[in-house]
Amino acid sequence: MVKLPEKTVERLSNYRRLLMRYQYLEKPYIFSRDLASLLKINPVHVRRDLMLIGVSGSHSKGYELRHLINQISQKLECNSGKNACIIGFSHAGRAILDILSLGNVPLNVKAIFDTSAKSINNTFNNVPCYSLEQIAAVVEKESITLAILSDMEEDPENYVALIGALGIKGIMNLTSTPLRLPDNIHLEEFDFVTSLIKLAYFSEE
Amino acid sequence: MVKLPEKTVERLSNYRRLLMRYQYLEKPYIFSRDLASLLKINPVHVRRDLMLIGVSGSHSKGYELRHLINQISQKLECNSGKNACIIGFSHAGRAILDILSLGNVPLNVKAIFDTSAKSINNTFNNVPCYSLEQIAAVVEKESITLAILSDMEEDPENYVALIGALGIKGIMNLTSTPLRLPDNIHLEEFDFVTSLIKLAYFSEE
Repeated sequence: MVKLPEKTVERLSNYRRLLMRYQYLEKPYIFSRDLASLLKINPVHVRRDLMLIGVSGSHSKGYELRHLINQISQKLECNSGKNACIIGFSHAGRAILDILSLGNVPLNVKAIFDTSAKSINNTFNNVPCYSLEQIAAVVEKESITLAILSDMEEDPENYVALIGALGIKGIMNLTSTPLRLPDNIHLEEFDFVTSLIKLAYFSEE
Repeated sequence: MVKLPEKTVERLSNYRRLLMRYQYLEKPYIFSRDLASLLKINPVHVRRDLMLIGVSGSHSKGYELRHLINQISQKLECNSGKNACIIGFSHAGRAILDILSLGNVPLNVKAIFDTSAKSINNTFNNVPCYSLEQIAAVVEKESITLAILSDMEEDPENYVALIGALGIKGIMNLTSTPLRLPDNIHLEEFDFVTSLIKLAYFSEE
């Protein structure tokens, strides 16, 4: 299947994030120009993105909110439910679990892996936490294809080769270490440090 | 002062993140082509970025690591030490505090604001936590100009007008709500949901 461009996916996700906020309005319609204005982007982008996923609005009323949310969710495969694990249960790992537990992203967290004796053999939001030694067995048993890497005592690079060998197809990297992955593993860098540096750098004195 | 372009800042931060990993090597030099290869980007980009900040390497040995880290840190004003607060002390807020406590980003966290009685009047990594009612007084007293917004019970939009009035110049938004800010406040969206959606969408079956 042909994938949408990365920037389009980002914008569509952002429209959806905003629309979900307004879905219970009395008059559940929105014009592309209002959506654009709320997100401070060009309305032409909005119309082009929505055309690309085959959604059309009414001239007089705009787009129906719930329909639009559903169409975006479908195109972004938000209901596909791939299986994921969280490796390293730091605060960042817990933040991810909080968000996944809200249920509006297309991932089922099946396992947490950590080095802390306090976490191992407990469950968090009904997700079991295992020791890192169990990773190969659990990933296979639970058909896990995605991994979210958060900081832990171990160097995350030690796990990259292992993770690749287990058939993991995508990694979201929340650690402070940039990762080098084989080309067949998709990498999402989610870099707190760069974002904090940009916050300080671009904010006026 | 003329600011560097956003993408350049992102790449420079990424070089720095990677270089810090190698700074204690026996032979602390790196070639631009090796830096590019480690980050899977075009070496021309690396050379252009480093030229832009006035760093030059040696033909035979490449760039000296510690010097390069220092130059990037200086250009990104990583030692400027602006004062920041964390509003909403969820797991995401705690993850940010963890990172800021490592001390290699240009922010001093002076205060945490939260609604939970368990957190208020405690300190975390030596940072005091206040109730949201105290925000105006504390922001003024501590000369805070940056805010990191993480999820809490209150709707973050309720705070945007207040934060603007307090003279905050930049906000990093970790909440699930997209924010609309006045033009004089810099916004860094740090959107967990979109990143998770991209992880699932772009990873192969």
